[in-house]
Amino acid sequence: MRRKEFAVTEEQEIEQFLFSQSFGFLGTTDQDGWSRVTPLNFAYGQGVFYFHGSLAGEKMKHLKADNRVSFTVAEEFARIPSYYTDPVKACPATAFFKSVMVKGRAEKITDLTEKAEALTLFMKKLQPEGGYTPIDASDPAYVGELKAVSVVRIIPEHMSAKFKFGQNMTEDKRNQIAQGLTERNQGKDMETVRLMTQICPFHTE
Amino acid sequence: MRRKEFAVTEEQEIEQFLFSQSFGFLGTTDQDGWSRVTPLNFAYGQGVFYFHGSLAGEKMKHLKADNRVSFTVAEEFARIPSYYTDPVKACPATAFFKSVMVKGRAEKITDLTEKAEALTLFMKKLQPEGGYTPIDASDPAYVGELKAVSVVRIIPEHMSAKFKFGQNMTEDKRNQIAQGLTERNQGKDMETVRLMTQICPFHTE
Repeated sequence: MRRKEFAVTEEQEIEQFLFSQSFGFLGTTDQDGWSRVTPLNFAYGQGVFYFHGSLAGEKMKHLKADNRVSFTVAEEFARIPSYYTDPVKACPATAFFKSVMVKGRAEKITDLTEKAEALTLFMKKLQPEGGYTPIDASDPAYVGELKAVSVVRIIPEHMSAKFKFGQNMTEDKRNQIAQGLTERNQGKDMETVRLMTQICPFHTE
Repeated sequence: MRRKEFAVTEEQEIEQFLFSQSFGFLGTTDQDGWSRVTPLNFAYGQGVFYFHGSLAGEKMKHLKADNRVSFTVAEEFARIPSYYTDPVKACPATAFFKSVMVKGRAEKITDLTEKAEALTLFMKKLQPEGGYTPIDASDPAYVGELKAVSVVRIIPEHMSAKFKFGQNMTEDKRNQIAQGLTERNQGKDMETVRLMTQICPFHTE
């Protein structure tokens, strides 16, 4: 069930999250209507997702037959043990996370300049420190590789984001969880506490 | 393209990887044949995947109409910058990762004892430190919740694993990458170097 209070509509927050994630999961459908989920590095820019790969792969076959795809990116921020809010039952055990889900159509990019621009987006995200000659379709060093690589763009028809950080909980339980995370203080626990406060609908800061 | 040298067949390694991951991505197909990819906490035991959720959600509607699903779990271990192996071109930039991809059929579990066993598998993975009363279908504290929660098992018909740690590279490039990761020494870099050695087909240790 997608609860309304989980929906995230701020474009900037979604963009920042997508920029922070190197992997997403592409959903395609084969000829028999069976889904396939492929993990992929991706880039995102101006409302469009990009991935690249080999022309010979199974997902490319799927895309040729049916270009309707879905694409999902998710990160778990913190596992929330049941005992933060219930000393007896296991039921409250959960996880806080961010996710973005897209439905769209995949199109192969054939223009070399557009390919170069898409791959530049990739490099800016995955190798922000640089250390390479800019990818340019007029550079003889890159032309052969640009012709050989398959670059696909996904034009989203529908995009939704869900940032789950306890918005549906009572203030009491939220405080218990924030306290538990502060004491545990591992991984992204403190960032999770910050997000709980930022996203909380009851909080007026 | 799925290269043969990436395939992982050791059941124990696959199990350990699945136990280490709390999230997976479920692929379902809607009535129009459009895929949907949903991030989910999951458990895995004796060749079967489990997830739970609300009965009212969209993915449950999909499953009722068509129980053929795919399920993919992936973790990125290290981003490999292009300059580890090429001082000029961006092309060698890549990532080393583990992934498991499953095609199977989803079945709703109705028996309360089986539900309790599946949720126990979840808790053992996601809350190994305990801190709750064991989930038991004969415990009045749990019966109501067990009836209300929807638990689904995926019986795999096909499962494949891909652990990509430079197996397709020349020894020279592999050594350059191992050196780069050792110098960077962030996140899972050293574990990646260990896996590169362990998985390498040229290595005889």
